[in-house]
Amino acid sequence: MKMITGGVCAAQGFKAGGIHMGVKTHATWKKDVALIVSDCLCSTAAVYTKNQVKAAHIHVDMEHLQNGKARAAVINSGNANACAPNDLANAQRMCAAVAKEVGCDVADVVAASTGVIGQELNIGVIEAGMPELYKSISADAAGSDAAAHAIMTTDTQVKELAVETEIGGKTVRLGGIAKGSGMIHPNMGTMLCFLTTDCAISPAMTKEALLETVNVSFNRISVDGDTSTNDTCCVMANGLAGNDLITEKNADYAAFVAALKELSVQLAIMMASDGEGAKHLITCTVEGAETEAKAETIAKSVICSTLTKAAIFGCDANWGRVLCAMGYSGESFDPRKVSVWFESAAGSILVCQDGEGLPFDEDLAKAILTEHDVVIKIAMNEGAAACTCWGCDITYDYIKINGDYRT
Amino acid sequence: MKMITGGVCAAQGFKAGGIHMGVKTHATWKKDVALIVSDCLCSTAAVYTKNQVKAAHIHVDMEHLQNGKARAAVINSGNANACAPNDLANAQRMCAAVAKEVGCDVADVVAASTGVIGQELNIGVIEAGMPELYKSISADAAGSDAAAHAIMTTDTQVKELAVETEIGGKTVRLGGIAKGSGMIHPNMGTMLCFLTTDCAISPAMTKEALLETVNVSFNRISVDGDTSTNDTCCVMANGLAGNDLITEKNADYAAFVAALKELSVQLAIMMASDGEGAKHLITCTVEGAETEAKAETIAKSVICSTLTKAAIFGCDANWGRVLCAMGYSGESFDPRKVSVWFESAAGSILVCQDGEGLPFDEDLAKAILTEHDVVIKIAMNEGAAACTCWGCDITYDYIKINGDYRT
Repeated sequence: MKMITGGVCAAQGFKAGGIHMGVKTHATWKKDVALIVSDCLCSTAAVYTKNQVKAAHIHVDMEHLQNGKARAAVINSGNANACAPNDLANAQRMCAAVAKEVGCDVADVVAASTGVIGQELNIGVIEAGMPELYKSISADAAGSDAAAHAIMTTDTQVKELAVETEIGGKTVRLGGIAKGSGMIHPNMGTMLCFLTTDCAISPAMTKEALLETVNVSFNRISVDGDTSTNDTCCVMANGLAGNDLITEKNADYAAFVAALKELSVQLAIMMASDGEGAKHLITCTVEGAETEAKAETIAKSVICSTLTKAAIFGCDANWGRVLCAMGYSGESFDPRKVSVWFESAAGSILVCQDGEGLPFDEDLAKAILTEHDVVIKIAMNEGAAACTCWGCDITYDYIKINGDYRT
Repeated sequence: MKMITGGVCAAQGFKAGGIHMGVKTHATWKKDVALIVSDCLCSTAAVYTKNQVKAAHIHVDMEHLQNGKARAAVINSGNANACAPNDLANAQRMCAAVAKEVGCDVADVVAASTGVIGQELNIGVIEAGMPELYKSISADAAGSDAAAHAIMTTDTQVKELAVETEIGGKTVRLGGIAKGSGMIHPNMGTMLCFLTTDCAISPAMTKEALLETVNVSFNRISVDGDTSTNDTCCVMANGLAGNDLITEKNADYAAFVAALKELSVQLAIMMASDGEGAKHLITCTVEGAETEAKAETIAKSVICSTLTKAAIFGCDANWGRVLCAMGYSGESFDPRKVSVWFESAAGSILVCQDGEGLPFDEDLAKAILTEHDVVIKIAMNEGAAACTCWGCDITYDYIKINGDYRT
C-alpha cells in the first residue's frame, strides 16, 4: 500500500469539482458546492450522525441508498440545511438538479450539507449553478482539490488523500475528501467525508467495510465534544479496477479494509489537527489495558477533557488532569498502576509512575509540549490491549471563532 | 424559611476560621487552611466524587464517617493532595493536628483538599500553623468569611450562605461555605462544600437528606465537564436547635430537606456563576418533558455543550447549537415538537418553534444575551415534567487560567 496523489479523483472513473454558487453570501471568493460523479453506478454505503436531530440530507440519503447504489454526490457548505424551512424538499431538489445534469435517476444521487443550522437553504442558486458545476468537473487532482475546497467551513487546511494497493492481482485506488474543524465528536458517522474507489465490491461488503473503518478512525477523534447534526461519511466503489467482485470477508476484503482504514485514519488525524483554532494535535495512546474498548474509552476521555486541552494549549505538563479525565471516563482501574509520558519530536518524559507524580525537568517538558504534534502516552499495566485517539487543544481562537459563528 | 447572614457559623454551636499557613507558596496574602469546629459531636454525612481517581482525604473521611459522627472539618486549598507522595499519611496528619487542638478523637475530624494534583502536600506548615488557626476561630460571620476565603482557588467570589427555618416548633439554622470555579462537573458529590446546622437529626437521616439534596443542586451544574478527583460535600448537624431528633422521613425531615435544598441550590448557582473565566451564568430550563430525568439529561447536555457556551460568550443567539446538544444527549425525542427561547432581564425571544428557525429581532436577541444571567428555555411539548440546570460560558479567560494553572 502507498500514498498517492489525486484525492477523490485518484480512483479510475471518478470526476469531481467545486465552485462558488452563492450559498456563502458573505464570501464570494469561497467555493460552496462540490460534486463527485462516477462514470458508472457504484456500490455505495454511508454512515450518519447518531444525533437525534438529523439534517435533511441524511433522511434523503437513507432513502436513496436503500439499494446500496449511487452515481454522484453533491455537497454544499455554508448552510447545514437542518431544522430549517423546507429542508427536506431542498435536499431533494439538490439531488434532482444533479440527476438532470448527469442523466441519472434522482435516487442515484446522495447529498450532504454543512454550515449554520436553522436557516433556509438558498436552493435557487444551487439549481441555477449546477450546469456550470457539472461542466467544471474533471478526473484529475485539480478536480478533487476544487471539491475539497468547496466543502470547507472553518477548516484552515484542505483535507484530501489517496492510497493505492493491490487486491486480487489488480491495482486498486482509494481516495477521499473531508471537512472537519468544529462540532466534531463523531458518533458512528463523522463530519463530511466522501471516499471513492475503483475496487469491485458488493454494496453489502462496502457497508461492512465502512462500518469497520469508521469505528477505528473518525469515531476516535474529537475537537469539541459536540456531535454534529450533519455527520456523514460515504464511500462509493465503481468496480473499474477490474478485481474479482468482493462479496464476502475473504483476503481481498481484508486488503480493501486495510487500505480504507489507512486512508480514513489519516483523514481523521487531519481533522483533529485542523480543529477550530487548534495549535496542537493531541494523540493519546493507552497501552496495557484489559481490552481495546476500555483503552478507547479512556483515551477518548483524555482527548475530550477541556482542562487537559487547555493545559496542552499552555504547553503545561499538568498530568494530574490526564489522571482526572481517566478517572471520570466510566471505566474502573487501579490508579496506582498508571504511568504517564508526554512525548513529541523534542523528546519523551515520564511524569507520573504508579499513579504518583515524579520530579521532572520542567524545561524539557515545556520543549516537548511546544511542538505542534504531542503525544500523551498512558500505561495501564493491567493487560495487553491498546488504543489511540486524536484530538486538539482548546485556544483563544476556538472561543473567537465560536463566539460569533453566525455573522 | 428565610435567608440570613453568618454562613457556616449561622447555626448555634459552630465556630470557623481560616488563615495563611504556606500551602500556597506564591501568595502569602491568601488564606489556605480553613477549620470548622462544633461545640459538640455532630451527625455528619458526606458524598464524594465518583471519579475512579480519588484524593486521599476521601479515603480518610470515608473511614472517619463510618459512625456518622464528627466534631470538626479541616480544608486546605492550593494542593489537592491527590496522586501525590504520602497523600494518605498527610491527610491523616491533617486530621490529627486538628484533633490535638480540639481535644477530640482523630476519627471525629474530616478533611478535604483542593488545588494542584500530584504534588506532595507540605504537611509541616499545616501542623505548625494549626494552633494559630484554632485560636483564630470564632462563632460569628467573620469566622465563616475567613473559612470561605481559605478554601478558594481560582474562585473570584466568596461563596457562603445561611437560611433559617422552623422545624418541630424550634428555630433551625443551616449555613454553608463552598468553592467551585474549575474542574466542576459534579457527579454525586461536588467541589468542596461544607454545610452546618443546629438541627437535631440522626446520622442516617442526615445522609439521606444530603443525597436527596445533592442530586437536585450540585449535580445539576457544570463549568467544564471535568469531574474532579476531590469533590466533597459534607453536612454537620449538631442538634443544638433543640427540635425533636429527626429519625424518620416525617414532616420535620421534609422541612429540613427543603431548607437544605434551598441552601444548596443557591450555593450551586454561585459556583456556576463564578465558573473559571465566566462572563455569563447560563440557566437551562427544559419544560414539557416526559420525565424529570429526561429533562435533566437534556438540560445538562445543553449547559455542557462547548459550542453553546462559546455562542453565549459571544452573545450570539445560535440556537442551532442548543438543538444539536439536545440531539446528542442520548435521549430520544421529536425535534419537530421543540421550541426554544432566550431570556434575561432584557426580555424574552422565541427563536425556534416546532424544530424550525423563526425570523427574530437580532438586536433584541443581542441585548438579551448581553446580560450576565441568561436563560435558555426549551419546551419539549411531549409531557409535563421539567428540570433546570446551571452552567456558564467559555471565555478567553478560561483558556488563560487553565493554560498555565500550575505556575
